[in-house]
Amino acid sequence: MNGRLDEIAQLFEFIKETDKLKSVYRQTLITDRSRQENSAEHSWHLALMAVLFKNYANDPNLDVLRVIQMVLVHDIVEIDAGDTLAYDTVGHADKEERETAAARRIFGMLAEAFSAQFMQLWREFEDRETAEAKFAAALDNIHPMVLNYATEGAAWKKHGIKREQVLARNRSIANGSKDIWAYAEQLIDAAVRDGYLGK
Amino acid sequence: MNGRLDEIAQLFEFIKETDKLKSVYRQTLITDRSRQENSAEHSWHLALMAVLFKNYANDPNLDVLRVIQMVLVHDIVEIDAGDTLAYDTVGHADKEERETAAARRIFGMLAEAFSAQFMQLWREFEDRETAEAKFAAALDNIHPMVLNYATEGAAWKKHGIKREQVLARNRSIANGSKDIWAYAEQLIDAAVRDGYLGK
Repeated sequence: MNGRLDEIAQLFEFIKETDKLKSVYRQTLITDRSRQENSAEHSWHLALMAVLFKNYANDPNLDVLRVIQMVLVHDIVEIDAGDTLAYDTVGHADKEERETAAARRIFGMLAEAFSAQFMQLWREFEDRETAEAKFAAALDNIHPMVLNYATEGAAWKKHGIKREQVLARNRSIANGSKDIWAYAEQLIDAAVRDGYLGK
Repeated sequence: MNGRLDEIAQLFEFIKETDKLKSVYRQTLITDRSRQENSAEHSWHLALMAVLFKNYANDPNLDVLRVIQMVLVHDIVEIDAGDTLAYDTVGHADKEERETAAARRIFGMLAEAFSAQFMQLWREFEDRETAEAKFAAALDNIHPMVLNYATEGAAWKKHGIKREQVLARNRSIANGSKDIWAYAEQLIDAAVRDGYLGK
Protein backbone atom coordinates (compact mmCIF):
# COMPACT_ATOMS: atom_id res chain seq x y z
CA MET A 1 0.00 0.00 0.00
CA ASN A 2 1.35 3.46 -0.74
CA GLY A 3 2.07 6.05 1.94
CA ARG A 4 -0.92 8.30 1.32
CA LEU A 5 -3.37 5.41 1.60
CA ASP A 6 -1.70 4.36 4.85
CA GLU A 7 -2.09 7.91 6.17
CA ILE A 8 -5.76 7.95 5.18
CA ALA A 9 -6.32 4.57 6.82
CA GLN A 10 -4.76 5.93 10.04
CA LEU A 11 -7.04 8.97 9.95
CA PHE A 12 -10.07 6.73 9.57
CA GLU A 13 -8.98 4.74 12.64
CA PHE A 14 -9.23 8.05 14.51
CA ILE A 15 -12.63 8.78 12.94
CA LYS A 16 -13.90 5.36 14.05
CA GLU A 17 -12.52 5.91 17.56
CA THR A 18 -14.12 9.35 17.86
CA ASP A 19 -17.42 7.84 16.72
CA LYS A 20 -17.72 6.83 20.40
CA LEU A 21 -18.41 10.49 21.29
CA LYS A 22 -21.90 9.87 19.86
CA SER A 23 -22.50 7.57 22.83
CA VAL A 24 -21.34 10.01 25.54
CA TYR A 25 -24.53 11.51 26.94
CA ARG A 26 -24.78 14.88 28.65
CA GLN A 27 -27.27 15.93 31.31
CA THR A 28 -29.06 18.31 28.95
CA LEU A 29 -32.11 17.05 27.07
CA ILE A 30 -32.60 17.84 23.39
CA THR A 31 -35.47 20.27 22.82
CA ASP A 32 -38.13 17.62 22.09
CA ARG A 33 -37.20 16.09 25.48
CA SER A 34 -37.06 12.58 23.97
CA ARG A 35 -33.55 11.89 25.26
CA GLN A 36 -30.29 13.37 26.59
CA GLU A 37 -28.02 15.18 24.19
CA ASN A 38 -24.76 13.49 23.22
CA SER A 39 -21.41 15.26 23.08
CA ALA A 40 -20.93 14.82 19.30
CA GLU A 41 -24.14 16.60 18.32
CA HIS A 42 -23.49 19.20 21.06
CA SER A 43 -20.10 19.88 19.39
CA TRP A 44 -21.82 20.31 16.00
CA HIS A 45 -24.19 22.84 17.52
CA LEU A 46 -21.30 24.79 19.08
CA ALA A 47 -19.45 24.94 15.75
CA LEU A 48 -22.59 26.29 14.09
CA MET A 49 -22.89 28.83 16.91
CA ALA A 50 -19.28 29.93 16.41
CA VAL A 51 -20.23 30.99 12.87
CA LEU A 52 -23.43 32.72 13.95
CA PHE A 53 -22.28 34.45 17.16
CA LYS A 54 -18.74 35.51 16.23
CA ASN A 55 -19.75 39.19 15.97
CA TYR A 56 -20.67 39.14 19.66
CA ALA A 57 -17.21 38.05 20.84
CA ASN A 58 -15.44 40.65 22.99
CA ASP A 59 -12.44 40.39 20.66
CA PRO A 60 -13.34 41.84 17.25
CA ASN A 61 -10.32 40.09 15.69
CA LEU A 62 -11.38 36.61 16.72
CA ASP A 63 -9.99 33.72 14.62
CA VAL A 64 -13.27 31.92 14.01
CA LEU A 65 -11.63 28.90 12.32
CA ARG A 66 -9.63 28.35 15.52
CA VAL A 67 -12.79 28.61 17.64
CA ILE A 68 -14.52 26.07 15.41
CA GLN A 69 -11.60 23.64 15.55
CA MET A 70 -11.54 24.01 19.33
CA VAL A 71 -15.22 23.22 19.80
CA LEU A 72 -15.02 20.29 17.36
CA VAL A 73 -12.23 18.77 19.45
CA HIS A 74 -12.98 19.97 23.01
CA ASP A 75 -15.18 17.07 24.17
CA ILE A 76 -13.32 14.15 22.52
CA VAL A 77 -11.54 13.37 25.81
CA GLU A 78 -14.96 12.44 27.24
CA ILE A 79 -14.74 9.18 25.27
CA ASP A 80 -12.49 7.91 28.07
CA ALA A 81 -13.18 10.41 30.85
CA GLY A 82 -16.98 10.73 30.55
CA ASP A 83 -19.02 13.92 30.77
CA THR A 84 -18.68 15.60 34.15
CA LEU A 85 -21.82 17.45 35.28
CA ALA A 86 -21.04 21.17 35.49
CA TYR A 87 -22.21 21.27 39.14
CA ASP A 88 -20.51 18.04 40.27
CA THR A 89 -17.63 19.18 42.52
CA VAL A 90 -16.51 15.62 43.34
CA GLY A 91 -16.28 14.63 39.68
CA HIS A 92 -14.30 17.79 38.98
CA ALA A 93 -11.55 16.89 41.49
CA ASP A 94 -9.74 14.44 39.21
CA LYS A 95 -11.26 15.68 35.93
CA GLU A 96 -8.01 17.19 34.68
CA GLU A 97 -5.99 14.05 35.31
CA ARG A 98 -8.54 11.76 33.65
CA GLU A 99 -8.91 14.07 30.68
CA THR A 100 -5.18 14.52 30.14
CA ALA A 101 -4.71 10.75 29.97
CA ALA A 102 -7.63 10.56 27.54
CA ALA A 103 -6.18 13.29 25.34
CA ARG A 104 -2.81 11.50 25.20
CA ARG A 105 -4.38 8.19 24.22
CA ILE A 106 -6.92 9.43 21.69
CA PHE A 107 -4.99 12.27 20.02
CA GLY A 108 -1.97 9.94 20.14
CA MET A 109 -3.70 7.83 17.48
CA LEU A 110 -2.92 10.60 15.00
CA ALA A 111 0.39 11.29 13.24
CA GLU A 112 2.67 13.69 15.13
CA ALA A 113 1.57 16.96 13.48
CA PHE A 114 -2.15 16.38 14.05
CA SER A 115 -1.62 14.84 17.46
CA ALA A 116 0.23 17.97 18.59
CA GLN A 117 -2.33 20.27 16.94
CA PHE A 118 -5.31 18.58 18.61
CA MET A 119 -3.57 18.40 21.98
CA GLN A 120 -2.85 22.12 21.71
CA LEU A 121 -6.43 22.98 20.72
CA TRP A 122 -7.74 21.00 23.66
CA ARG A 123 -5.30 22.54 26.15
CA GLU A 124 -5.99 26.02 24.81
CA PHE A 125 -9.69 25.46 25.36
CA GLU A 126 -9.14 24.16 28.88
CA ASP A 127 -6.81 27.04 29.81
CA ARG A 128 -9.31 29.79 28.86
CA GLU A 129 -6.52 32.29 28.22
CA THR A 130 -6.83 33.22 24.55
CA ALA A 131 -9.74 35.19 23.13
CA GLU A 132 -10.68 32.13 21.06
CA ALA A 133 -10.75 29.82 24.09
CA LYS A 134 -12.80 32.32 26.13
CA PHE A 135 -15.32 32.63 23.33
CA ALA A 136 -15.47 28.85 22.73
CA ALA A 137 -16.08 28.35 26.46
CA ALA A 138 -18.82 31.00 26.41
CA LEU A 139 -20.61 29.04 23.66
CA ASP A 140 -20.09 25.77 25.57
CA ASN A 141 -21.70 27.34 28.66
CA ILE A 142 -24.63 29.18 27.10
CA HIS A 143 -25.69 26.24 24.90
CA PRO A 144 -26.95 23.94 27.70
CA MET A 145 -28.61 26.93 29.41
CA VAL A 146 -30.67 27.60 26.28
CA LEU A 147 -31.60 23.91 25.95
CA ASN A 148 -32.42 23.75 29.65
CA TYR A 149 -34.74 26.72 29.37
CA ALA A 150 -36.33 25.26 26.22
CA THR A 151 -37.05 22.02 28.11
CA GLU A 152 -38.60 23.86 31.08
CA GLY A 153 -35.46 23.34 33.15
CA ALA A 154 -35.48 19.53 32.91
CA ALA A 155 -31.81 19.03 33.84
CA TRP A 156 -31.81 21.87 36.40
CA LYS A 157 -34.84 20.41 38.16
CA LYS A 158 -33.45 16.86 38.09
CA HIS A 159 -30.31 17.97 39.92
CA GLY A 160 -32.00 20.63 42.12
CA ILE A 161 -29.85 23.40 40.65
CA LYS A 162 -30.33 26.94 41.98
CA ARG A 163 -29.90 30.40 40.49
CA GLU A 164 -26.69 31.17 42.40
CA GLN A 165 -25.02 27.99 41.10
CA VAL A 166 -25.85 28.87 37.52
CA LEU A 167 -24.62 32.43 38.00
CA ALA A 168 -21.36 31.31 39.64
CA ARG A 169 -20.68 28.59 37.09
CA ASN A 170 -21.45 30.66 34.00
CA ARG A 171 -20.36 34.19 34.87
CA SER A 172 -17.16 33.58 32.90
CA ILE A 173 -19.27 33.72 29.72
CA ALA A 174 -18.65 37.49 30.01
CA ASN A 175 -14.92 36.86 29.46
CA GLY A 176 -15.73 35.65 25.96
CA SER A 177 -18.80 37.72 25.18
CA LYS A 178 -20.37 40.44 27.29
CA ASP A 179 -23.39 40.40 24.97
CA ILE A 180 -24.02 36.68 25.38
CA TRP A 181 -23.63 37.05 29.16
CA ALA A 182 -26.22 39.86 29.16
CA TYR A 183 -28.56 37.47 27.32
CA ALA A 184 -27.72 34.68 29.79
CA GLU A 185 -28.59 36.87 32.79
CA GLN A 186 -32.01 37.56 31.30
CA LEU A 187 -32.46 33.85 30.63
CA ILE A 188 -31.60 32.98 34.24
CA ASP A 189 -34.09 35.57 35.53
CA ALA A 190 -36.77 34.15 33.24
CA ALA A 191 -35.94 30.58 34.32
CA VAL A 192 -36.37 31.48 37.99
CA ARG A 193 -39.58 33.41 37.27
CA ASP A 194 -41.01 30.49 35.28
CA GLY A 195 -40.08 27.95 37.96
CA TYR A 196 -37.49 26.10 35.82
CA LEU A 197 -34.60 26.98 38.13
CA GLY A 198 -34.49 27.17 41.95
CA LYS A 199 -34.30 30.60 43.63
CA MET B 1 -34.66 45.18 25.12
CA ASN B 2 -31.70 46.51 23.21
CA GLY B 3 -30.92 45.59 19.61
CA ARG B 4 -28.01 43.24 20.29
CA LEU B 5 -30.02 41.17 22.76
CA ASP B 6 -32.84 40.93 20.22
CA GLU B 7 -30.36 39.72 17.61
CA ILE B 8 -28.98 37.11 20.02
CA ALA B 9 -32.50 35.96 20.90
CA GLN B 10 -33.24 35.54 17.17
CA LEU B 11 -30.07 33.47 16.71
CA PHE B 12 -31.10 31.21 19.58
CA GLU B 13 -34.48 30.64 17.94
CA PHE B 14 -32.50 29.26 15.01
CA ILE B 15 -30.34 27.16 17.34
CA LYS B 16 -33.46 25.71 18.95
CA GLU B 17 -34.99 24.99 15.53
CA THR B 18 -31.84 23.28 14.26
CA ASP B 19 -31.80 21.16 17.42
CA LYS B 20 -34.32 19.03 15.48
CA LEU B 21 -31.47 17.77 13.26
CA LYS B 22 -30.50 15.60 16.25
CA SER B 23 -33.71 13.65 15.63
CA VAL B 24 -33.20 13.07 11.89
CA TYR B 25 -31.84 9.55 11.63
CA ARG B 26 -29.72 8.25 8.75
CA GLN B 27 -29.50 4.68 7.50
CA THR B 28 -25.93 4.27 8.77
CA LEU B 29 -25.39 2.73 12.20
CA ILE B 30 -22.86 4.21 14.62
CA THR B 31 -19.86 1.92 15.10
CA ASP B 32 -21.14 0.20 18.28
CA ARG B 33 -24.28 -0.70 16.24
CA SER B 34 -26.56 0.43 19.09
CA ARG B 35 -28.58 2.77 16.86
CA GLN B 36 -28.73 4.74 13.62
CA GLU B 37 -26.58 7.83 13.28
CA ASN B 38 -28.33 11.19 13.32
CA SER B 39 -27.55 14.02 10.91
CA ALA B 40 -26.26 16.43 13.58
CA GLU B 41 -23.52 14.12 14.86
CA HIS B 42 -22.76 13.09 11.26
CA SER B 43 -22.19 16.80 10.48
CA TRP B 44 -19.83 17.09 13.45
CA HIS B 45 -17.82 14.15 12.18
CA LEU B 46 -17.59 15.67 8.69
CA ALA B 47 -16.34 18.98 10.09
CA LEU B 48 -13.66 17.12 12.03
CA MET B 49 -12.78 15.23 8.85
CA ALA B 50 -12.46 18.50 6.92
CA VAL B 51 -9.66 19.50 9.32
CA LEU B 52 -7.94 16.11 9.15
CA PHE B 53 -8.26 15.31 5.44
CA LYS B 54 -7.75 18.74 3.86
CA ASN B 55 -4.27 17.80 2.59
CA TYR B 56 -5.84 15.09 0.43
CA ALA B 57 -8.14 17.47 -1.46
CA ASN B 58 -7.38 17.71 -5.18
CA ASP B 59 -7.19 21.49 -4.82
CA PRO B 60 -4.14 22.44 -2.73
CA ASN B 61 -5.61 25.92 -2.15
CA LEU B 62 -8.79 24.67 -0.54
CA ASP B 63 -10.59 27.12 1.79
CA VAL B 64 -11.07 24.75 4.73
CA LEU B 65 -13.22 27.20 6.72
CA ARG B 66 -15.65 27.25 3.82
CA VAL B 67 -15.69 23.44 3.67
CA ILE B 68 -16.38 23.28 7.41
CA GLN B 69 -19.20 25.83 7.20
CA MET B 70 -20.68 23.87 4.29
CA VAL B 71 -20.72 20.55 6.13
CA LEU B 72 -22.10 22.16 9.30
CA VAL B 73 -25.04 23.52 7.28
CA HIS B 74 -25.52 20.93 4.50
CA ASP B 75 -28.02 18.64 6.23
CA ILE B 76 -30.15 21.23 8.06
CA VAL B 77 -32.78 21.06 5.29
CA GLU B 78 -33.45 17.46 6.39
CA ILE B 79 -35.33 18.86 9.40
CA ASP B 80 -38.26 19.39 7.02
CA ALA B 81 -37.30 17.20 4.07
CA GLY B 82 -35.98 14.11 5.89
CA ASP B 83 -32.91 12.07 5.04
CA THR B 84 -33.15 10.50 1.60
CA LEU B 85 -31.37 7.13 1.33
CA ALA B 86 -28.51 7.47 -1.15
CA TYR B 87 -29.87 4.58 -3.22
CA ASP B 88 -33.57 5.61 -3.13
CA THR B 89 -34.33 6.81 -6.68
CA VAL B 90 -38.01 7.53 -5.92
CA GLY B 91 -37.16 9.71 -2.92
CA HIS B 92 -34.63 11.56 -5.03
CA ALA B 93 -37.22 12.62 -7.65
CA ASP B 94 -38.65 15.52 -5.60
CA LYS B 95 -35.69 15.87 -3.22
CA GLU B 96 -34.58 19.21 -4.66
CA GLU B 97 -38.02 20.77 -4.40
CA ARG B 98 -38.56 19.59 -0.83
CA GLU B 99 -35.12 20.71 0.25
CA THR B 100 -35.36 24.14 -1.38
CA ALA B 101 -38.60 24.84 0.50
CA ALA B 102 -36.93 23.64 3.70
CA ALA B 103 -33.89 25.88 3.15
CA ARG B 104 -36.15 28.90 2.60
CA ARG B 105 -38.12 28.28 5.77
CA ILE B 106 -35.27 27.36 8.10
CA PHE B 107 -32.54 29.74 6.88
CA GLY B 108 -35.28 32.37 6.60
CA MET B 109 -35.41 32.42 10.40
CA LEU B 110 -32.07 34.24 10.34
CA ALA B 111 -31.42 37.92 9.66
CA GLU B 112 -30.82 38.71 6.00
CA ALA B 113 -27.00 38.47 5.94
CA PHE B 114 -26.88 35.03 7.61
CA SER B 115 -29.93 33.80 5.76
CA ALA B 116 -28.24 34.60 2.44
CA GLN B 117 -24.91 33.15 3.60
CA PHE B 118 -26.42 29.85 4.72
CA MET B 119 -28.58 29.57 1.60
CA GLN B 120 -25.48 30.11 -0.50
CA LEU B 121 -23.43 27.53 1.44
CA TRP B 122 -26.19 24.98 1.02
CA ARG B 123 -26.63 25.67 -2.72
CA GLU B 124 -22.88 25.59 -3.26
CA PHE B 125 -22.74 22.18 -1.59
CA GLU B 126 -25.64 20.89 -3.67
CA ASP B 127 -24.19 22.20 -6.95
CA ARG B 128 -20.81 20.43 -6.53
CA GLU B 129 -19.05 22.99 -8.70
CA THR B 130 -16.46 24.62 -6.45
CA ALA B 131 -13.41 22.77 -5.10
CA GLU B 132 -14.82 23.22 -1.58
CA ALA B 133 -18.18 21.71 -2.50
CA LYS B 134 -16.56 18.75 -4.29
CA PHE B 135 -14.37 18.06 -1.27
CA ALA B 136 -17.25 18.46 1.20
CA ALA B 137 -19.30 16.02 -0.88
CA ALA B 138 -16.38 13.57 -0.95
CA LEU B 139 -16.33 13.61 2.88
CA ASP B 140 -20.11 13.23 3.00
CA ASN B 141 -19.87 10.16 0.75
CA ILE B 142 -16.87 8.37 2.27
CA HIS B 143 -18.08 8.81 5.88
CA PRO B 144 -21.06 6.39 5.70
CA MET B 145 -18.94 3.91 3.71
CA VAL B 146 -16.41 3.78 6.54
CA LEU B 147 -19.16 3.37 9.15
CA ASN B 148 -20.87 0.73 7.00
CA TYR B 149 -17.66 -1.26 6.73
CA ALA B 150 -17.04 -0.87 10.49
CA THR B 151 -20.51 -2.29 11.20
CA GLU B 152 -19.99 -5.27 8.85
CA GLY B 153 -22.15 -3.66 6.18
CA ALA B 154 -25.26 -3.33 8.37
CA ALA B 155 -26.99 -0.68 6.23
CA TRP B 156 -25.79 -2.18 2.93
CA LYS B 157 -27.16 -5.60 3.88
CA LYS B 158 -30.45 -4.18 5.15
CA HIS B 159 -31.12 -2.55 1.78
CA GLY B 160 -29.49 -5.28 -0.35
CA ILE B 161 -26.96 -2.84 -1.80
CA LYS B 162 -24.48 -4.16 -4.38
CA ARG B 163 -20.95 -3.21 -5.34
CA GLU B 164 -21.95 -1.52 -8.60
CA GLN B 165 -24.42 0.76 -6.81
CA VAL B 166 -21.78 1.88 -4.35
CA LEU B 167 -19.27 2.47 -7.15
CA ALA B 168 -21.77 4.44 -9.26
CA ARG B 169 -23.02 6.51 -6.34
CA ASN B 170 -19.63 7.36 -4.89
CA ARG B 171 -17.31 7.64 -7.88
CA SER B 172 -17.66 11.42 -7.67
CA ILE B 173 -15.53 11.29 -4.50
CA ALA B 174 -12.61 11.46 -6.97
CA ASN B 175 -13.76 14.95 -8.02
CA GLY B 176 -12.96 16.17 -4.52
CA SER B 177 -10.09 13.86 -3.60
CA LYS B 178 -8.41 11.25 -5.79
CA ASP B 179 -6.63 9.92 -2.69
CA ILE B 180 -9.84 9.38 -0.74
CA TRP B 181 -11.40 7.70 -3.77
CA ALA B 182 -8.40 5.34 -4.04
CA TYR B 183 -9.01 4.46 -0.38
CA ALA B 184 -12.74 4.03 -1.06
CA GLU B 185 -12.10 1.59 -3.92
CA GLN B 186 -10.01 -0.57 -1.62
CA LEU B 187 -12.73 -0.39 1.03
CA ILE B 188 -15.37 -1.50 -1.48
CA ASP B 189 -13.21 -4.44 -2.56
CA ALA B 190 -12.70 -5.44 1.06
CA ALA B 191 -16.44 -5.09 1.78
CA VAL B 192 -17.31 -7.45 -1.09
CA ARG B 193 -14.56 -9.89 -0.07
CA ASP B 194 -15.78 -9.91 3.55
CA GLY B 195 -19.42 -10.39 2.54
CA TYR B 196 -20.58 -6.97 3.81
CA LEU B 197 -21.61 -5.76 0.35
CA GLY B 198 -23.28 -7.69 -2.49
CA LYS B 199 -21.22 -8.61 -5.58
